[in-house]
Amino acid sequence: MAKLVLSLCFLLFSGCCFAFSFREQPQQNECQIQRLNALKPDNRIESEGGFIETWNPNNKPFQCAGVALSRCTLNRNALRRPSYTNAPQEIYIQQGSGIFGMIFPGCPSTFEEPQQKGQSSRPQDRHQKIYHFREGDLIAVPTGFAYWMYNNEDTPVVAVSLIDTNSFQNQLDQMPRRFYLAGNQEQEFLQYQPQKQQGGTQSQKGKRQQEEENEGGSILSGFAPEFLEHAFVVDRQIVRKLQGENEEEEKGAIVTVKGGLSVISPPTEEQQQRPEEEEKPDCDEKDKHCQSQSRNGIDETICTMRLRHNIGQTSSPDIFNPQAGSITTATSLDFPALSWLKLSAQFGSLRKNAMFVPHYNLNANSIIYALNGRALVQVVNCNGERVFDGELQEGQVLIVPQNFAVAARSQSDNFEYVSFKTNDRPSIGNLAGANSLLNALPEEVIQQTFNLRRQQARQVKNNNPFSFLVPPKESQRRVVA
Amino acid sequence: MAKLVLSLCFLLFSGCCFAFSFREQPQQNECQIQRLNALKPDNRIESEGGFIETWNPNNKPFQCAGVALSRCTLNRNALRRPSYTNAPQEIYIQQGSGIFGMIFPGCPSTFEEPQQKGQSSRPQDRHQKIYHFREGDLIAVPTGFAYWMYNNEDTPVVAVSLIDTNSFQNQLDQMPRRFYLAGNQEQEFLQYQPQKQQGGTQSQKGKRQQEEENEGGSILSGFAPEFLEHAFVVDRQIVRKLQGENEEEEKGAIVTVKGGLSVISPPTEEQQQRPEEEEKPDCDEKDKHCQSQSRNGIDETICTMRLRHNIGQTSSPDIFNPQAGSITTATSLDFPALSWLKLSAQFGSLRKNAMFVPHYNLNANSIIYALNGRALVQVVNCNGERVFDGELQEGQVLIVPQNFAVAARSQSDNFEYVSFKTNDRPSIGNLAGANSLLNALPEEVIQQTFNLRRQQARQVKNNNPFSFLVPPKESQRRVVA
Amino acid sequence: MAKLVLSLCFLLFSGCCFAFSFREQPQQNECQIQRLNALKPDNRIESEGGFIETWNPNNKPFQCAGVALSRCTLNRNALRRPSYTNAPQEIYIQQGSGIFGMIFPGCPSTFEEPQQKGQSSRPQDRHQKIYHFREGDLIAVPTGFAYWMYNNEDTPVVAVSLIDTNSFQNQLDQMPRRFYLAGNQEQEFLQYQPQKQQGGTQSQKGKRQQEEENEGGSILSGFAPEFLEHAFVVDRQIVRKLQGENEEEEKGAIVTVKGGLSVISPPTEEQQQRPEEEEKPDCDEKDKHCQSQSRNGIDETICTMRLRHNIGQTSSPDIFNPQAGSITTATSLDFPALSWLKLSAQFGSLRKNAMFVPHYNLNANSIIYALNGRALVQVVNCNGERVFDGELQEGQVLIVPQNFAVAARSQSDNFEYVSFKTNDRPSIGNLAGANSLLNALPEEVIQQTFNLRRQQARQVKNNNPFSFLVPPKESQRRVVA
Repeated sequence: MAKLVLSLCFLLFSGCCFAFSFREQPQQNECQIQRLNALKPDNRIESEGGFIETWNPNNKPFQCAGVALSRCTLNRNALRRPSYTNAPQEIYIQQGSGIFGMIFPGCPSTFEEPQQKGQSSRPQDRHQKIYHFREGDLIAVPTGFAYWMYNNEDTPVVAVSLIDTNSFQNQLDQMPRRFYLAGNQEQEFLQYQPQKQQGGTQSQKGKRQQEEENEGGSILSGFAPEFLEHAFVVDRQIVRKLQGENEEEEKGAIVTVKGGLSVISPPTEEQQQRPEEEEKPDCDEKDKHCQSQSRNGIDETICTMRLRHNIGQTSSPDIFNPQAGSITTATSLDFPALSWLKLSAQFGSLRKNAMFVPHYNLNANSIIYALNGRALVQVVNCNGERVFDGELQEGQVLIVPQNFAVAARSQSDNFEYVSFKTNDRPSIGNLAGANSLLNALPEEVIQQTFNLRRQQARQVKNNNPFSFLVPPKESQRRVVA
Repeated sequence: MAKLVLSLCFLLFSGCCFAFSFREQPQQNECQIQRLNALKPDNRIESEGGFIETWNPNNKPFQCAGVALSRCTLNRNALRRPSYTNAPQEIYIQQGSGIFGMIFPGCPSTFEEPQQKGQSSRPQDRHQKIYHFREGDLIAVPTGFAYWMYNNEDTPVVAVSLIDTNSFQNQLDQMPRRFYLAGNQEQEFLQYQPQKQQGGTQSQKGKRQQEEENEGGSILSGFAPEFLEHAFVVDRQIVRKLQGENEEEEKGAIVTVKGGLSVISPPTEEQQQRPEEEEKPDCDEKDKHCQSQSRNGIDETICTMRLRHNIGQTSSPDIFNPQAGSITTATSLDFPALSWLKLSAQFGSLRKNAMFVPHYNLNANSIIYALNGRALVQVVNCNGERVFDGELQEGQVLIVPQNFAVAARSQSDNFEYVSFKTNDRPSIGNLAGANSLLNALPEEVIQQTFNLRRQQARQVKNNNPFSFLVPPKESQRRVVA
Repeated sequence: MAKLVLSLCFLLFSGCCFAFSFREQPQQNECQIQRLNALKPDNRIESEGGFIETWNPNNKPFQCAGVALSRCTLNRNALRRPSYTNAPQEIYIQQGSGIFGMIFPGCPSTFEEPQQKGQSSRPQDRHQKIYHFREGDLIAVPTGFAYWMYNNEDTPVVAVSLIDTNSFQNQLDQMPRRFYLAGNQEQEFLQYQPQKQQGGTQSQKGKRQQEEENEGGSILSGFAPEFLEHAFVVDRQIVRKLQGENEEEEKGAIVTVKGGLSVISPPTEEQQQRPEEEEKPDCDEKDKHCQSQSRNGIDETICTMRLRHNIGQTSSPDIFNPQAGSITTATSLDFPALSWLKLSAQFGSLRKNAMFVPHYNLNANSIIYALNGRALVQVVNCNGERVFDGELQEGQVLIVPQNFAVAARSQSDNFEYVSFKTNDRPSIGNLAGANSLLNALPEEVIQQTFNLRRQQARQVKNNNPFSFLVPPKESQRRVVA
């Protein structure tokens, strides 16, 4: 019996999960890349409480990788209005901390507000779970799940968000689409839709919606007021608000909450003191707090799924060398929600003049976003052409397509990056150092392949004892075979 | 052990099955939809025993959804000749009843005909299982499985068939293709092939097949007669029949069986009396009839798979409100064959002036076909544009792409529809009512997001106590918070 | 419990593995095929130790099937340099024998060379497993896994290689790409890239790489020498060799090893004497040799995965009829590595004038490569058009798209072919003979469908008692019902 289960396990991992990506391929020739660039956002949309920057998803490398990238900045007391997207999303918190909510359709509301201000006649509020986030957190947003974010501290929150538009969970075409529940702003990627004629659409819209004079962009704004009156059982005045009509000014996707948002949520201090809370299982049966919430099986697996995982500087790294730097990864093995998204991420930190060795991703595209400092990066395609050779600086992004080789050397005291990968179990092949491809080849094959003497082949195989991060040259312990 | 299995289960459901669709994405921009239409079939092909109507699969909404739709009408004693398609298929029986057969390649013939008319020297016939169908049945046809249908009653059979051409089981391009085993009719979607030059093909065909003078369209008609003589070990006269040569008139895909078809099949009365027969397992070990058929494990799981499931008006509904209507769904949880097809379906019935609330499909496109009556429907895209605002009437189809919001209000006493969905575990997000997204948000977030007073936010959250179907306004119990 | 596991099993097989292909669909209209051709390679690239021939992957049938095909010939002592591809690969050994290595990233080096020539001070070499191959072997190469091959016999090795570019493991576009670790040759499919302007690229490359004057095509050649010095901890002279600079002549992808390659590998004799070694599990716990290698769970499942499986003439066939021929298949059930690749293969051998019956592949494209002899083949599309009617000769390839019907009759004493299929669990539907679709239909349905008399319908169902391979007509035992 155990054997059967294990063999199932094996089949499952190898056949379905290990190597598969469940992603759409890019269009013909999108990956015939002669030149890559380190890119800054090319557009910025201001809102009342912050701004959203976007990278053009029609750029060839983004088309090849099949992703869209944006960066959202929330000032103090700013609330990003609830929205959902047509593809799975990974959000990395570059800076700041706050709270967010994500709505699991069909799951119960498990957070109950206490009665307030002596108004005993009021029914208390109930809503779904609220989460804290902090710098270094990776947040997983499944396709179509609505979420909101709020900054309750002074430091602005900076969140970098990757939408995997080529994911098979997106059954629409490859344009990223954000559906806002509220507000009258356009979704941030609309401007990049190639066939969108703003004028024509407005006039068409005008014809169809003359009675409402509604210019808003939220999904509720698109329905007839009668429908909403019927569906919400509220009066026309509230419906107008739901549709974002007559909003005093153009507030946009991020609004400022005067006086701050007061929602019930677990104490922040506790979360700060236990930065590794996400490492432990949410609940065990002896836990009193846990027993008080009676849940069924569905609840335990889906409705209470962990949605954030810290991979930042303060997390326990997976690869560590004090002279070279550290690497922390989040895959579906340590962050199970990623098995839904079929995405993963890696946080890297490189000391000055340290490098990560030339390597390639076997089964994923890699989208490298520089968090801090700068590094010299080189990328090589299948024809041996160096398609990128330059600096990657804080705030820039570089796309490294699947199987392309990449290496980098830090130019600053501490180069930090987050690399989003389009596979929940990414696998890399190192081209130098311990555990590299060359290290696994017989000496004679290296000798004949590279036309080397045996002595030289041995050096190529064994001189570098480091497995991924190589310390600066000056600190290297030279090994002479 | 149980834990391991459960965790496997979880992985399986979450990673592979819950959210995934295994479907091809539409081409670039196919889903930039400014306007949808309620569509009637645009073509009709007459046959001896009935007719087949088709919707143009090159229409933008069909391209976006990646499906093709047709409707087949069988008169009394009409037999639809066996055929298979290059993609999985869901058939909904809008009207009538009859029998069908589906061929599982490699499975044994388990229906044995008794000896007939005292001709004791004749070997009895054996063939694979024959199924009854009736109004409200959903029939699952896996990719490449040949099936035939027969109407043995007076009422014409009307069957609506959805082919999921974007399914990954279709390794060809996205054109729907039907392969007939017999007859000399063209497959019904051939006319829509954009690059099909009828003349050129015929002349090319003429050059290659001059010796046969064969104009038929079945797959057997395409082989040289020598090949078929060799393969079937029959004479040239029979081969000519197999190739559909000299068929007296153009019979087409549906032939009339003079005197009616007499095949061995379980009694119809029993099936009529037990409309819920599909709910029980086919066999348990104490069942005598079951023991007499010795089957191995493969037989039990694949060869005897249940292929029909009733979701019609007479089935037990999943959502029910006497004043509003009812909803019955078939997913891979209650109809396991759908886990092959990666499709599902929903039957809905709305009382006059009742509505289903604004909602969206998280992980599926929805193809709504009106069975009866008419309803006012509105569809909204990610830019807040109302891309459909009109009546959906009996016999029309409306495509609602993934994540687009939709709401409807019945205009007739009983509006009935079937909605095909391109995911075997579809998930919806309601925008109003109990269990809606807004219901799961904290009051304060609703207040700030929609710029409401707390009192109003509470009304938006709680006024509508219904979860999906809302009774007519006049019968609503007004709740004033 | 057993029941739960079995139902999981069922779900797994049916939902994920039985029918699914996990492949990209071809572009619009790529499969509207009016005419197929038996194709020989259209290009040949010479190397020092052999040559590589390729078929143009932009041909419509290759585009429809989503695959690329090449054939590599290795002379005695020829070494194909290590390379990896952006999609899974099946290699069939048409002729010869030799050794190959494949590098599993992250797996340990388990082959240890003994100390040589009394040089006791030298550290011994360690590397990953080396495999023998021989005629009839199918080798599975997962996406991104680097491999090398070597011919240590006099007979030239001829290896036919299929790259499944439409596999979802390929996240790049549909061009096949080979990444060489060494050498300065171009990858063999570069010439077919439609937008590759050779001149433009070279000049651009020249601008970026003026300091190196490096024209090589390996991935290591693309990095700056400083990077490689740092990563490998070797001097500039060795780096120049790694980058393939100043290679005396243009050696190409296949180099000749003077004096022969001497790598540690298990004795060839043993492998020759046990051609069926791949049938037995690699290890059981009582095996002493096995116990000496301490391995963990990961090792056992992934790192020691079997990568070759013989389906050639000397293997035990799955279908056998001395007068007609034999068929041997490799699916993921007998060759588990194929569940990674989502590919399978079939070896067939037909006696003179024997035929395989008209049939179609339910869930796969079939790429038929003729190994020996010649056969008359016919292929029919969904419109009943005979899109191929001709000879398939040794060295030619014919692509049969999913659901298209195909039949063949051998024209020579022994027609041998290998058919690559784009599904790891391919399923076929026979149109004639025992276990065919027609055999599973009720007699009456055949009668009415083909307009036959009952007597004739019985002949069509029962006359041919053979299930896939039909002996020559002259040796057939005529059955008259």
